[in-house]
Amino acid sequence: MIRIATAECFTHGKIAREIHAFSQGYPLSYKWTISPKDYRLSLIAGLFIPTISGIRKILKFEPLPPTEVVDDIKVYDESADKKMAKRMAEAIKDITRADIGIGTTAGVGRGGIAIIADNMKVISSSDVYADLRSSPATEIMKRQKSGVERALKLLEVILPHI
Amino acid sequence: MIRIATAECFTHGKIAREIHAFSQGYPLSYKWTISPKDYRLSLIAGLFIPTISGIRKILKFEPLPPTEVVDDIKVYDESADKKMAKRMAEAIKDITRADIGIGTTAGVGRGGIAIIADNMKVISSSDVYADLRSSPATEIMKRQKSGVERALKLLEVILPHI
Repeated sequence: MIRIATAECFTHGKIAREIHAFSQGYPLSYKWTISPKDYRLSLIAGLFIPTISGIRKILKFEPLPPTEVVDDIKVYDESADKKMAKRMAEAIKDITRADIGIGTTAGVGRGGIAIIADNMKVISSSDVYADLRSSPATEIMKRQKSGVERALKLLEVILPHI
Repeated sequence: MIRIATAECFTHGKIAREIHAFSQGYPLSYKWTISPKDYRLSLIAGLFIPTISGIRKILKFEPLPPTEVVDDIKVYDESADKKMAKRMAEAIKDITRADIGIGTTAGVGRGGIAIIADNMKVISSSDVYADLRSSPATEIMKRQKSGVERALKLLEVILPHI
């Protein structure tokens, strides 16, 4: 059994829900190319943490200084988002002692996605540019959808190698 | 600003997502009867924690002994679900120092829903009976939908009184 935990911002916990549903045999939106027979996954926990204070209190590290803070919600550029996603993934992996930790966050840009295993780190982003401060909700949602799909695709790709 | 944090099991983090979306001005599925102008809410974090180990590692309390454990997923009866929901709500409220903590879990029965504020505790359940071990996914999903709606309705009801 491969144990997974997520700490998500712009993907709102949807990566965790897809992994949990896959592990329980009722996939949701994502079209998996792997089968629950080949990979037994367990979602330990999926944390949606949009706020600076949530990062501090639950993941217990000091976030990078954000470009902007709107109602306690952090806004980074794409480079900082990737660093933050990596730290979020590492933190939730350590806290839960998971085999794989996944972190996501997106402010201005395509966002950061990190998948951390003991023998591998994958850092990437979604395919959609958006600005949390000014883009319409439709663009924000497109970036989210792209981020969820990218994270799950990368997870499928690395599973045979961890 | 009223700060809210959730620790969810059978509602899969959907209560948190609805509250976050409301606070950001783009409501999702739930039909709110309150307006973001009347109540400024902030979702600090929404945790989906289906596993025993996730409860221990993230919420840092020892769960009640479950009726059954399936792949590290806890199964309780309705009475124990209510007690567990209360402890999950209290734990996430304490950890994040939120004004309101919300906890949910459901194994066999209608599940437990807890909303904890400094001056109030509300313990309830969904309207739908299901058995996590044997009910078809459609019934489990009906219970989830009912649980999300019940929790948000109760939140709306108590907001003027906290």
